[in-house]
Amino acid sequence: MTEARRGATEARHPTGTLERHGPIGTQRETEPGTTSDGQGPVVLDGQEPAVVSARHEAAVPDGHEAVVLLREARASVDPELRSAMNSLPSSMRRTALYHFGWQHADGTPAAGNAGKAIRPALVLTSAAALGGPGARTAAVRAAAAVELVHNFTLLHDDVMDRDATRRHRPTAWAVFGDADAILAGDALQALALRLLAADPHPAAAAAATRLADCVMELCEGQHADTAMEGRAPGDVTLDETLAMAEAKTGALLGCACALGALYAGATDEDVEAMDAFGREAGLAFQLIDDVIGIWGDPRRTGKPAGADLAARKKSLPVVAALASGTPAAAGLAELYATPYNEGKEDLERTALAVERAGGRDWAQAQAADRMARAMQELARAVPDPEAAGGLLALAEFVTRRST
Amino acid sequence: MTEARRGATEARHPTGTLERHGPIGTQRETEPGTTSDGQGPVVLDGQEPAVVSARHEAAVPDGHEAVVLLREARASVDPELRSAMNSLPSSMRRTALYHFGWQHADGTPAAGNAGKAIRPALVLTSAAALGGPGARTAAVRAAAAVELVHNFTLLHDDVMDRDATRRHRPTAWAVFGDADAILAGDALQALALRLLAADPHPAAAAAATRLADCVMELCEGQHADTAMEGRAPGDVTLDETLAMAEAKTGALLGCACALGALYAGATDEDVEAMDAFGREAGLAFQLIDDVIGIWGDPRRTGKPAGADLAARKKSLPVVAALASGTPAAAGLAELYATPYNEGKEDLERTALAVERAGGRDWAQAQAADRMARAMQELARAVPDPEAAGGLLALAEFVTRRST
Repeated sequence: MTEARRGATEARHPTGTLERHGPIGTQRETEPGTTSDGQGPVVLDGQEPAVVSARHEAAVPDGHEAVVLLREARASVDPELRSAMNSLPSSMRRTALYHFGWQHADGTPAAGNAGKAIRPALVLTSAAALGGPGARTAAVRAAAAVELVHNFTLLHDDVMDRDATRRHRPTAWAVFGDADAILAGDALQALALRLLAADPHPAAAAAATRLADCVMELCEGQHADTAMEGRAPGDVTLDETLAMAEAKTGALLGCACALGALYAGATDEDVEAMDAFGREAGLAFQLIDDVIGIWGDPRRTGKPAGADLAARKKSLPVVAALASGTPAAAGLAELYATPYNEGKEDLERTALAVERAGGRDWAQAQAADRMARAMQELARAVPDPEAAGGLLALAEFVTRRST
Repeated sequence: MTEARRGATEARHPTGTLERHGPIGTQRETEPGTTSDGQGPVVLDGQEPAVVSARHEAAVPDGHEAVVLLREARASVDPELRSAMNSLPSSMRRTALYHFGWQHADGTPAAGNAGKAIRPALVLTSAAALGGPGARTAAVRAAAAVELVHNFTLLHDDVMDRDATRRHRPTAWAVFGDADAILAGDALQALALRLLAADPHPAAAAAATRLADCVMELCEGQHADTAMEGRAPGDVTLDETLAMAEAKTGALLGCACALGALYAGATDEDVEAMDAFGREAGLAFQLIDDVIGIWGDPRRTGKPAGADLAARKKSLPVVAALASGTPAAAGLAELYATPYNEGKEDLERTALAVERAGGRDWAQAQAADRMARAMQELARAVPDPEAAGGLLALAEFVTRRST
C-alpha cells in the first residue's frame, strides 16, 4: 500500500463541519456527474480546501471546463473503443454495444448514452497535465482500456446485484441473460488488457500491470459490498464501508489518473500522488452519491425516492448514522431491522432518522475532507495551477460541486 | 484467421473409418486425461497418421513420457501459481484456492487436485521443443498465465451452466455463491494478464495479446454452447458444433502451444503451426471426451451413466447422429424431443440410437483425422522427431490413445 493509500484509510472522522447553501444533490446517476445541468448542485463550500482557493480557483469558474474536457475525452476515446469492440466475436459485440448504448437490443444503431467518460477524461487530462498534448495523444489507448474495465465491472455487478436498470435502460443481463452479460464482461476485460499489451508505448506494460491490479481491487470492493448486504446493519463498521467504497469506486478513478501519469513519463512518486488524487476524489464522489441516493430528487435520479433506504442499503450516511450512538441511531436500527414497509411514510421516517443521527452531515464533511486531500495530492504531482486546472475541474464536477 | 485455422474448419467429414480394438473410453474428467490409468484406453489405431508411424512412434511407447512431462509441469508452475494467488485480495484468494483444490471451503489446506496441468505442460514442452531448456524456464510465467485463464473460465462456466460438481467436489459457486465465483474468475483473468504484463521477457507482450485474444474466443465458444442448449436438436448443425468445440476447447490448447513457441523465439509461421497443432489435438480430445460422456464407465467418469444423454446434451456424436439421415436418426430425434424419462431404459435406447446412426464411429474417425492434422502441424514446426516427442506424447495422452 502506498503512503497515499494508507492515508486514505486513516482519519475517518474529520472534525470539520459543512454549511449547506442549498438543497442537497438533486442528481444521481451510475456515472459521476452524468445528469449535471446546473440545478441544485451539491455545495461543499464550507470546507473549501485552502489549496483550491489560493491556487486553482480561477481555473474552475462554473464547471464549463469539465464539460469541455469530458466532451473532448469522449471524442478522443470513442473511435478507439468502437474499433476495439468491433474486433469482438459477434455475440459479445452485440451485448457490449447494447451496454454502451450504441445499439438497441435488436442490433440496430442507437444514439447512445455511454456515460460521461469521466475515467477516460481523467487518464487524458492527467497525461496532459504532466506531459503536455503529446502525452495526451499517446494515452488514448490507455483511456479506452480504463473505460472498458469500468464497463466490464458494470456488466458483472449488475448480474450479481440483480440490478435491472442502468442509464435508464434494461441492463444487459435483463435483455440477453446472465450468461451473455458475464461473457461480455469477460471479453471486455480481455479487450482492455489486450489494448495495452499491443501498445508499443514504453509505459504500456506498467499501465497494464497497474490496471490488472486495479481489477483485483475492484473485485474485492464488489465482494465486500455484496457480503455486507447480507449482514446485520449494526455489524457493519464505518471503516469497512469506507474501505469498500475506496476499493469499489476510488480505485479505478485513481488508476485512471495514475495511467495518465505513466503515459506522461512521470516519476513513481508523481504516479502515486495522482493515484491518491483520483482515489480521494472518488471517495468524495461516492459520499455525495450516497447522500443523493437518500435525499435526491427522483425525477433527476431516475430511481424512486429513497430507493437506497427501501432496499435497506448500508450506504455511507446510514452506516455513519448507525454508528453515531445517538437516540436517532437506535430508531434507525429498528427501522433497518424490518423490511421496507411499502409507502412514503417509512422512507420519510428512515431518512429523518439518518439525518438526525448525523449521517447526512457526516457524509458531507467527509466528502469535503476527501476533496481537500485530493487537492493536496494534485498540488504535489502538478504544482503548476494552470496545468492542474483541468483535473481540478473534473474532480469538482464528479462531486457535483460545480455543474 | 490463419491458414491452419481455416483448415480446421473445413473437411468436416473424413472418409476414413476406425477399427475399435477394445471398449471405448472408460475415463472422463473435466481435464484431458485426468483419470488415465491404463485401463480401457480409447484406441484410434485404425487411422494411425502416417507421420506418426514414420517419424515419431519410438517417442511414445506407453504414455509414460506424458506423465513425466505433466508432473514436471505441475512442479514448475505451482510455485508461480501459488505466489500469484497469494497476491489476490483475501476473498478472491479463498475462492480461487478452493477451486484449485488447495484449500477446503473453511480455508484449511487441502491435498488438492488442481488438474493434470495439461495446458502448462503444453506451454513448457512447446518452449523446450523449439528453444531448449532455457526457453522452458523462461516460459514458466506464461504457463501459469494459461492455467489461470483456464481456471477463470471454469469458474464462470460452472456458474452459467449451473454445474454443481467439478473434480469430485462442489463447484465454487455452490460453496461461496455466484457473486464470489464470478469475482474470483474475474480476478484470475486479471492475474493471468498481470503475470505477462510484469514479465520482462521480449515475448511477453505478444503472448499477452495472444492470450487476451484467446479469452475472447473462449467466451464465444461458451456463448455458442449455452445458446445451442436452448435450441431444438435438429436445428444445430455439425459445423457449428465443431466450431463451438474448437473455440471452447481447442483455442486454449492452441494458445498454450503458441505461447511456448513465442517464448522460444519461434518464427510467426512456427507459432501459427504450434497453435494449429494444439487446436487439432484439442478437438480430438473433445470428440473422445464426448464419446466417453455417452459410453464411459460411471465409476471412472464420476458422473451417472449417460449423463450427457439424460441432459439431452447436443454433444458431437449426438449432432453427427442426428445429421446422418438414417432411420436411427429419426428415432434419436424423437427421444431428444422429449425430456429424459428417468430410468436406464431411456438412456440405453438413446445411446443405441446414437450408435446406430453412426455418431460413435463418426466421432472416432473425426478424432483420428484431427490427430493426423495435429501431427502434420507439429512436424512442420518441429521437424526433429526427438524434439517433437514430448508434444506428441502429450497429444496422445489427452486423447487417451496412450495411458
